[in-house]
Formats: sequence, C-alpha cells, structure tokens
Amino acid sequence: MGELGAVAGRAGAGAPDEDQVSRALLFQEFHRGPDLLVLPNAWDAGSAVLFERAGFPAVGTTSAGIAYSLGYPDGQRLTLEELLHVQATIARRLTVPLTVDVEAGYGTTPQEVAATVRRVVAAGGVGVNLEDGRDGGLADLAMQAEVIAAVSQLKAETGVPFVINARTDSYWLGLGDATTRLAESVRRGNAYLAAGADCVFVPGRFGADVIATLVAEIDGPLNVIASPECPSPRELQELGVARLSVGSAPVRAVLGLVRDIASALGQGDMAWVRDVSLGYDEANALFA
Amino acid sequence: MGELGAVAGRAGAGAPDEDQVSRALLFQEFHRGPDLLVLPNAWDAGSAVLFERAGFPAVGTTSAGIAYSLGYPDGQRLTLEELLHVQATIARRLTVPLTVDVEAGYGTTPQEVAATVRRVVAAGGVGVNLEDGRDGGLADLAMQAEVIAAVSQLKAETGVPFVINARTDSYWLGLGDATTRLAESVRRGNAYLAAGADCVFVPGRFGADVIATLVAEIDGPLNVIASPECPSPRELQELGVARLSVGSAPVRAVLGLVRDIASALGQGDMAWVRDVSLGYDEANALFA
Repeated sequence: MGELGAVAGRAGAGAPDEDQVSRALLFQEFHRGPDLLVLPNAWDAGSAVLFERAGFPAVGTTSAGIAYSLGYPDGQRLTLEELLHVQATIARRLTVPLTVDVEAGYGTTPQEVAATVRRVVAAGGVGVNLEDGRDGGLADLAMQAEVIAAVSQLKAETGVPFVINARTDSYWLGLGDATTRLAESVRRGNAYLAAGADCVFVPGRFGADVIATLVAEIDGPLNVIASPECPSPRELQELGVARLSVGSAPVRAVLGLVRDIASALGQGDMAWVRDVSLGYDEANALFA
Repeated sequence: MGELGAVAGRAGAGAPDEDQVSRALLFQEFHRGPDLLVLPNAWDAGSAVLFERAGFPAVGTTSAGIAYSLGYPDGQRLTLEELLHVQATIARRLTVPLTVDVEAGYGTTPQEVAATVRRVVAAGGVGVNLEDGRDGGLADLAMQAEVIAAVSQLKAETGVPFVINARTDSYWLGLGDATTRLAESVRRGNAYLAAGADCVFVPGRFGADVIATLVAEIDGPLNVIASPECPSPRELQELGVARLSVGSAPVRAVLGLVRDIASALGQGDMAWVRDVSLGYDEANALFA
C-alpha cells in the first residue's frame, strides 16, 4: 500500500483505532438477534445527537436527507467530499456506532467503490449501505458481487470489521412484477452475502407476506424500511427481521414542517410560533 | 492591505462582485420601507432553499440553528470556520440576499470582529448581525460602537454596501427592569446607528407598546423577533417596524418534531410515518 493509500486507509500506519473496532463489533452483533435493530437515519449532527439521546444503540445516515440539508435532490448529487464532511461533523458528536449510506459507492469499478468505503472507514464509520440500483435498473449482478467482495477485503486491510449492508433495489425501483421482484431480491441478496455482505437491505413498500419469504429465503440478516405497509417493529422481530431503517421519512417530516411554517409566515400567520414545543434553553440543553 | 488580507477581503484584487453589490443594495432597500421585511432564519441549505421557494426576498441565518444542526448548544460553540462552511453551502444554493448572524463577531477587538465580517462578505454575505451581549451582560458601549465603526469601514474597503444589523441585548438577557431595558436599548441603538449600523435589532418578548416606543425613539430601521407576545406582521408594519426575524423558532419546531419522532420510534410506534406530509419524489422536486 502506497503512502496515500496508508493515509486514506487508516489515517496513518499501525493498528486500527480500538474504539472503532469495538463499535464495529457491537454493530455487527446488533444484526445477529434476537432483538430487531431499529436504526434511525440522521441527516446532520443535530438529528444524530437527538437519536442517540433517545436511546438508539446506533445511527445511520440518510443519503437523501444529507442531500436535502445541503439543498440538493437525492441521487449522488451530493459529492463524496460533502458526504465525508457531514459524516465527520456527525461522528464528532456521536458515541454510538455510525453507518453511512454511500448510495452506489461513488464509483463504477470495485476499486473505485472500495476507495470510497476506505475513506468512510478512515473517518470512523463502522458500516456502509451499498445499493445496486443504477439509472432506474439494476447493476450487473456479477459486477456488483465483485464490488462487494472488494469492499469486504477492506475489513482485513483496515482491521475494522465494519458492516456491509448490501441493498438490492427491485422493489424500490418497481422493476418487473411482484413475483420477479421477490425472486430477484432473494437471488441478489444471497449473491451479495456470498460475496461478503453482512446484511441484505430490501427497501420497498410491502407487508408481512413478502417479508416472511425474504427472511426464509435470504441466508443472512434482513433489513427492511419503514413504510405505511410495513408491520410494526414487534411483528418484524417475530418475523425474524434483523434491522429496520426509517430512511428519509423523518427528514421528510421535517421538510414538510419547514414548508408549512414558511407558507404560514409568508401569509403573515404567526400561530405556528405558539406551537413550537421546544424552548431555547431546552434546545441548548439537548446539545450541552 | 497585505496579500492574505486581499485574498480574505475580496477573493482577489480588483472590483467587487457586481451581483453581490446588487444583492446588498437590494437588501438595504428592504429596510427602508414601506413594507415590513419578514426574514426567515435558515440553519442549512435545505431550509434556506425552502424559504426562498416560499417567496421570501432574503434569508438570514440563525446562529442557534446552525449550532444545533452541528450538534452544539448556541453561544459561539460553533467555530467561525464551521459557520463560514455552512454559509458557503447555503450561498451555493440561494439566489436571494443572505445575511449572517456572527453573534459577537468571533473576536474582542474592532480589528478582530472586522476580520470576521470581512470573511463573511468575501463568502458572499450581504448582511451581518452583531450582538452586544457578553456573558450575561452587555459589552462596553464605547467599545461596541468602535467595533461597529470598524465593520462599517469594510463597506468602502470591500465595495459591498452590506447591512450591519446591530443587536442590543437588554431585553434578550433580561437586564435591569422594564424601564431601564427600554432606555438602554434606545441609547445603544442610537449609538450603534451613529457608529455606522444600518438597522437596530432588539430581540425580546414584548408587545406593541414597547415596539411603538422603540420605533419612535430609535433613529433608524428597527428589527424585532417573533414571539408569542409579538404583534402580527401587519400590525408591526403599521407600527413602523422595518424587519421581523423568526430567530430559532423554526429550527426549534423542527427539533421538537425530531425528538417526538425519535421517542415514538423508540417505543415501536410507527404512526408518525403515515403523517409524513412530504413524499420522496416531492422532496426531490423541492431541490431539483
């Protein structure tokens, strides 16, 4: 490994940060039951701190939320540099494990995606989400498995046993019909696990029947996303789901509120001020 | 001016950015009536873009909100570097004038505060808020007037006629009694105007009686802040107020919502997901 590689890979030569290794091992454990890991998705340090203070044992990022907070739409409009900057601002204020959504990995080759993940791990991340959706379709399965294998090799290289959450997007992108979506999600999920993924993420709007089949047919931990169709956390746990993400739902709730406040304020309606539930001293205390 | 000063002052030698000069002149005009300037306070690029899209002709920052979004309490815990970074991310996505709350100016001498404001203007800002509150009391009046005079000299130096909004904190900090607060706010407001301020900001929770006196006795534009006691924008305009800020109220509304969602999610209650008013495609469209 060259000098730049060493710097990017471990922020210097030598042993990995033991705290980071501990956080990574803890985060791995959360995927191995029996309890469902409910993972809130933060878009800035403030939301991450509020989630940690509410008692969640780990926090994920939402790529959509980070993009929105920087004024962009979702979909890798956010640059990797911007993402890493936000990751650093979150990591500085968080003590629980942080996993980072790197979308398709900011690259097309296994080497490029591995370089992205190396930087996320070097910045203290103990997990990544890697998605196979590409321009409305799916990445070539063999190529995506190679990407995951390359990322998996970073665990030995960095000494950090971070969690690879391999996302497959047949449901998310509405590809094929109900039967082919399910079959493709299972096929890809298992291929990604075989390539070194630690968990399979199948985001989409479906209920207990589909989830039960995914749990039965995918040979590793399953991650689903909150939606109006999604069963309750208790039911998900009974179904054998390992991890529940909330994705961009909280940040969209926030943006909906900002839009409503802006609209009221623009009309000279100040009633919303009386509804603000958090006082100034109380807000400061949350971050003290 | 030395090489570093030139770089910091104007991002290079030569004439100022004509767009920035236009935005500054426009922003100055908004303070000279007859309409009340309603200024929403953003904490990141996303909130700034939503305010601009709602039709507001200018946007301010909230130092408290930026601190919260980075996981800090308010009160210059946020570094100047972090503030400038957030300013840059907002400025990149905004077309209307942006004014920046620099709290006490990140310095104690006129030279230090002027150096701060020089960087804010170099980053495209066309206004600053400068407060006189210090550790629960007020800055020495003569010294704060010197600070404002030094900042005012930057208008000629940079060629950008930015708005100096001089904040005085007798009400905000609850100093003295009702009579001395009012007298001290007037006295300081007029001293700051004489030193080169363009507008006087008196944040606090008071009603039409106090506001009418402030308008009558302060010899320049008055800025007040939204509160449950504050009259409606229409009444404020009739009273002769130039500018209404909302301060940290919108970001505190947002943080209250995040806290409530985190609490519900922690209890396995997913009902909030159905209440999210903004869909994923709709959110992306807001920032497209």
